[in-house]
Amino acid sequence: MRSEIDWLKILLHCKDNVKVHIHPHLKTLSEPQPDLGKGAGGDPMKPIDLAAEKAIVETLRQHDLSFTLISEESGVKEFSEESKQCYVTVDPIDGTTNLDRGLPFYASSIAISTMPALSTVFAALVTDLFHDTTYTALEGEGAYRDGKKITPSAHTSLEEAVIGLDLNGCKVKEIAPQLTNLIQKTKHIRHFGANALELCYVADGLTDAFVDIRGKLRVTDIAAGFLILKEAGGTITAPEGRALDVKLDPKQKMKFVASGNRQMHKTILSLVKPKC
Amino acid sequence: MRSEIDWLKILLHCKDNVKVHIHPHLKTLSEPQPDLGKGAGGDPMKPIDLAAEKAIVETLRQHDLSFTLISEESGVKEFSEESKQCYVTVDPIDGTTNLDRGLPFYASSIAISTMPALSTVFAALVTDLFHDTTYTALEGEGAYRDGKKITPSAHTSLEEAVIGLDLNGCKVKEIAPQLTNLIQKTKHIRHFGANALELCYVADGLTDAFVDIRGKLRVTDIAAGFLILKEAGGTITAPEGRALDVKLDPKQKMKFVASGNRQMHKTILSLVKPKC
Repeated sequence: MRSEIDWLKILLHCKDNVKVHIHPHLKTLSEPQPDLGKGAGGDPMKPIDLAAEKAIVETLRQHDLSFTLISEESGVKEFSEESKQCYVTVDPIDGTTNLDRGLPFYASSIAISTMPALSTVFAALVTDLFHDTTYTALEGEGAYRDGKKITPSAHTSLEEAVIGLDLNGCKVKEIAPQLTNLIQKTKHIRHFGANALELCYVADGLTDAFVDIRGKLRVTDIAAGFLILKEAGGTITAPEGRALDVKLDPKQKMKFVASGNRQMHKTILSLVKPKC
Repeated sequence: MRSEIDWLKILLHCKDNVKVHIHPHLKTLSEPQPDLGKGAGGDPMKPIDLAAEKAIVETLRQHDLSFTLISEESGVKEFSEESKQCYVTVDPIDGTTNLDRGLPFYASSIAISTMPALSTVFAALVTDLFHDTTYTALEGEGAYRDGKKITPSAHTSLEEAVIGLDLNGCKVKEIAPQLTNLIQKTKHIRHFGANALELCYVADGLTDAFVDIRGKLRVTDIAAGFLILKEAGGTITAPEGRALDVKLDPKQKMKFVASGNRQMHKTILSLVKPKC
């Protein structure tokens, strides 16, 4: 089934339609937004999130796909007849707060998998909606930025590294022992606030690693970036070093360390591994 | 002297020339760079930093200004004949690491003052060189983004706030007690890696505050943003709450809290004030 379908074409079509559908909403963001309640992932939903999700679903339907949607907004929804072809895990807008505030970092993330499990993602797209840059990957075929093959950084020293670190709302006292050495040894720490995109930055060598050990990040945020990073040649595991084999579910949260290369990964894991 | 000169015109002319002069260097950044030693601020100098500084100095000279340059790169240099008109404090490229790595956040910062003291800055420009957005301020005349008046955010709650926090190379154990509560109470933490620009983000309401209590940030990075934030209506002080009255010198380092409004500032100071 996977080989009969041009997944890259479908994903890029989704991306084009997301851009068209969110366009009218970009102009009204500064106006009061209707209360749409919370999405399946627990964050307040906004019309722009739903417009992006609708664009993705409608595009997949146009291509006659039969699938289960796993969305940060609508939760799990069936769009399948008798023979389901795939699971589609989406964060329609990753970085909604940035978008709301005018900060130029927000993305759309789409991951296609054979099962509702992260390890089975085989096609992925993350598109930077502000800068119009699109990362894609197909299993076994490498990762690409706007059609150009990407590779992660070869840096191995923290002294020269640029490392993404998500501290949002973290229980500092609990994770401080794990982060103290990493922060002290890293020259350049960043957090741009759109995790799907920040994972692609590691894949593309713009940063050397991205660390999120809060246990608060949803798998919907990283499902696509996970494949893009692996296909680029990077490494992503749990902070303990084990493979990330989690369920694709809007409520599923996780911790991870993503690095450009194995040496950098080993160095970071040695610093952030839980001591107990 | 100040009122006879069109400082805004001169600053914008500097900005235009910086863009022209750095353009050839943007294409060669991925190639090995010559070793130019360390700049006055202590970071390695690159040809692009010097090209930006040269563009600023040459523009000021074209306008027949007689000044003392206080630069993160070249240090303190006299460009004055018998009657000095001003001090010009520059960080020619703020966010050189971002620029090097392809991360779309780097700026140029220029502050004009009557004395080599931060409190005497009366004209300022910070230009986002990637997104081509320029912030300016003249003392007593407000702050502007691309000619449009800006105001900071009115948010007062940390729960909804987006706060910039610079942790680069900080002595975590020393400042953790001051930062723990701030990090735990803040929903959205960011660090984009170009401090001059991040200060302008507070001025423009894109973020609600920017906190740097490491004691490592150079005054050359914030001299222009300092005036832009104050003129926009924001507040910036030392973490203890006292006014920032520091010398303009390439080696001068400082700590500060910058906030969109007084209530937010009070809240943050209550969390990060040194306990002793």
